[in-house]
Amino acid sequence: MARQRIAVIGGVAAGPAAAAEAKRTDPNADVVLFEQGTQISYGACELPYIVSGTIADADEVILLTPETFEETRGATVKVNHRVERIRPRRNRLVVRDVTTQAVREERFDKFILATGASADRALFSELLPRNVFCLRTLDDAVDLTAYLEAHTVRHAVVLGGGFVGLEAADALHQRGVRVSVLDGGRGLLGQSLNKAFQERLRSVLHAARIAVRSETAVDTHTGADGAVSALVTDKKEVIGCDLVVVATGIRPNVALAEQAGLKVGKTGALVVNDRMRTNIPNVWACGDCIEVVRTVDQRKIFYPLALAAFRTARVAGRNAARQGHGRPATFPGVIGIAAVKVFGYEIAQVGLTYAEAQAAGFDAHVTPIKHWSRVSMLPGAERLWVTLIWERVRGRVLGAQLMGREGAALRSNTLVPLIRSGDDLQALESLDFMYTPPLAPSLDPLFVAARTAIKQWKQVR
Amino acid sequence: MARQRIAVIGGVAAGPAAAAEAKRTDPNADVVLFEQGTQISYGACELPYIVSGTIADADEVILLTPETFEETRGATVKVNHRVERIRPRRNRLVVRDVTTQAVREERFDKFILATGASADRALFSELLPRNVFCLRTLDDAVDLTAYLEAHTVRHAVVLGGGFVGLEAADALHQRGVRVSVLDGGRGLLGQSLNKAFQERLRSVLHAARIAVRSETAVDTHTGADGAVSALVTDKKEVIGCDLVVVATGIRPNVALAEQAGLKVGKTGALVVNDRMRTNIPNVWACGDCIEVVRTVDQRKIFYPLALAAFRTARVAGRNAARQGHGRPATFPGVIGIAAVKVFGYEIAQVGLTYAEAQAAGFDAHVTPIKHWSRVSMLPGAERLWVTLIWERVRGRVLGAQLMGREGAALRSNTLVPLIRSGDDLQALESLDFMYTPPLAPSLDPLFVAARTAIKQWKQVR
Repeated sequence: MARQRIAVIGGVAAGPAAAAEAKRTDPNADVVLFEQGTQISYGACELPYIVSGTIADADEVILLTPETFEETRGATVKVNHRVERIRPRRNRLVVRDVTTQAVREERFDKFILATGASADRALFSELLPRNVFCLRTLDDAVDLTAYLEAHTVRHAVVLGGGFVGLEAADALHQRGVRVSVLDGGRGLLGQSLNKAFQERLRSVLHAARIAVRSETAVDTHTGADGAVSALVTDKKEVIGCDLVVVATGIRPNVALAEQAGLKVGKTGALVVNDRMRTNIPNVWACGDCIEVVRTVDQRKIFYPLALAAFRTARVAGRNAARQGHGRPATFPGVIGIAAVKVFGYEIAQVGLTYAEAQAAGFDAHVTPIKHWSRVSMLPGAERLWVTLIWERVRGRVLGAQLMGREGAALRSNTLVPLIRSGDDLQALESLDFMYTPPLAPSLDPLFVAARTAIKQWKQVR
Repeated sequence: MARQRIAVIGGVAAGPAAAAEAKRTDPNADVVLFEQGTQISYGACELPYIVSGTIADADEVILLTPETFEETRGATVKVNHRVERIRPRRNRLVVRDVTTQAVREERFDKFILATGASADRALFSELLPRNVFCLRTLDDAVDLTAYLEAHTVRHAVVLGGGFVGLEAADALHQRGVRVSVLDGGRGLLGQSLNKAFQERLRSVLHAARIAVRSETAVDTHTGADGAVSALVTDKKEVIGCDLVVVATGIRPNVALAEQAGLKVGKTGALVVNDRMRTNIPNVWACGDCIEVVRTVDQRKIFYPLALAAFRTARVAGRNAARQGHGRPATFPGVIGIAAVKVFGYEIAQVGLTYAEAQAAGFDAHVTPIKHWSRVSMLPGAERLWVTLIWERVRGRVLGAQLMGREGAALRSNTLVPLIRSGDDLQALESLDFMYTPPLAPSLDPLFVAARTAIKQWKQVR
């Protein structure tokens, strides 16, 4: 059998994992990883910590250099190579060396798309003004940090109140910059939190003197010398600023795939089956450019998070390379879990939100409680807010939100196996919970939430 | 129907919970709570924090005074009343008012035993020398603290290297006392940790300049004026000391029960069914005086921990009071989880240890890993050690031990639903894990442990 050639397109996170897995599966394969940028294998989640100065050297977030990757994983790495076209049915790929601008066509048997997602630019065009930054690529973080070091930035506007927006606001705040967050009417972490949590988070930001403006759409901007000096809202309000961070969201990079005839779902991301196969037989896809199944409601969602990227990459890499050997790898989907720590607070969301539960047709109910993070009379004991989302018919736990100065994020993990199994409130209430005074109260907040929800459930069922 | 009278014997933790639940179940019942001490309703787990001075006022650990309990829960509280005998078949109880020494007989329809457990006294008799202390009751903690404040204590010996022994050592260390721990040959947390973890813990204590002596049995002690000045080991070694804390274990208080004809199990604690009923129809028992079923191996164990006490108390209180109404409450047993934070380290154990797994007949295997508590390049990132215990036939997760400066204890909760459900390593490996740089690395230590164990499993199955 001829040596198979596998092209992996995209080198940030999923691509390297897929290439490594393909090579592990078929050590004889010729696996080539194409990346248009200069670096591969880094974590986007660490970027805000470069901006804050917590991570002093940006290179630290690079897990593997192209050289080390080639040596240890056995795949060929082509950085500064942009894939401009794939013709999977003809086994062809068109690639441009962005250094020399040379364009070449290459033959591959199989293709793995790991093209990731890109930051939305909001009102800005592709070429951003020089004091406007996204926070999606390593270069974004390096450029933003360099700008902060070279200029006096007194007031920054962050467009977007999602995870990245809040992390950017916190990072700038830590550098002594006055920050305004414009959430565009979507609320703070509005896709993940109910109103009460959003209000709580808003007051945390208020205490840190971060101005939060809701329902504020930005229409245009003014400035000179290629820099923005003010944003103008749809109500003609003028917000002066020295810096803008655009964190209005990210979008899957699917142009290359669409051109090749790959199917894009309602989420805007690529459609794959549980083996990470696309609608074209010799093309797999993984990472932030695909949609995944959320098992609780069987809905396809855009879920651009690290662990899912890693897992789908392993599945894609294995299945692309296996040539009928062994069992195909499958990806079971996600429960959905996300957490952030900003302004001293941990915030976590797991499973469905109330809105998502309702949209999925569940007769959903919400139980909010607050309890202690550790034994209340110990110093450092803090309030922990927990909101459980459950459904009436079987009392099934569907999701939760947690917030507090400590113990919120790690506690959210405990709910994952329960939500996945379709367990009910009783199953949560009857869990053994760790208890030791400096780390948890005798009745854990999750236990208290379950017990409170059970009382409510008895009223309505 | 005549108003039923229910006696609850023991008022520290399980007793008040059982009495309150009995009264909730039958508000018409006459529920009387007997406690031989002066206080009810406090947590034994907080006692070391009184000794260290972290909790400045010992009264803070009292959750409810007798007066408040009576007012809010509707049960009668008799403190300073020692129940000396119960005759359940004759519906009689003999009680001594320890203040007046008056003895009275009272009629009750039902009895709930919540007599708890008492500290083992090791080589000491019931009346301890004046510089020797247990750390089991609120009075113990208050007396020990008062002694430390009134005397110059340079060197203390802690007998026992279990949870309470280590917490006592840490508390004394925080007060500037030089501490030696004599683990009696059982190792540090030897009932809960494998050898590698015990060694790790030993080096943590070593770094804090705590002397740990293993295999050292104490034969006798010397001293004058009712105080101990030295302990003498079985090897005739003399260990001088100004203070001794006896933390060699606790034993269920079953004398009263045995006298009444109640069955005691192999563990030395009372035998109850899953409804907390004893072998005598009108007697229930709960809390630290009973044995419970560990569901993983269906073994009856002595498990004197707070949450189980609370839960068994609720079951006992409900079933004792319900008079055939509603469904009987049941207690499903425990998975087993315990955690402690000492000398800056969190240590947690969940499910079975390797020794327990072997004893239960599992073809048990152990997978140790170390990984980061948070993203490694962030300040504060610490090593977290995880040891997974699993069995060969189905790859079932049986237990785990975790240790690290942060993130060990709360992570242990995540394993509880999996162990309870009999889930395998694949189920653990495929969980969604929370990831955000300051709180967890992109691949959670539990994920890394599962993945490593799966590789091992593939070798042996």
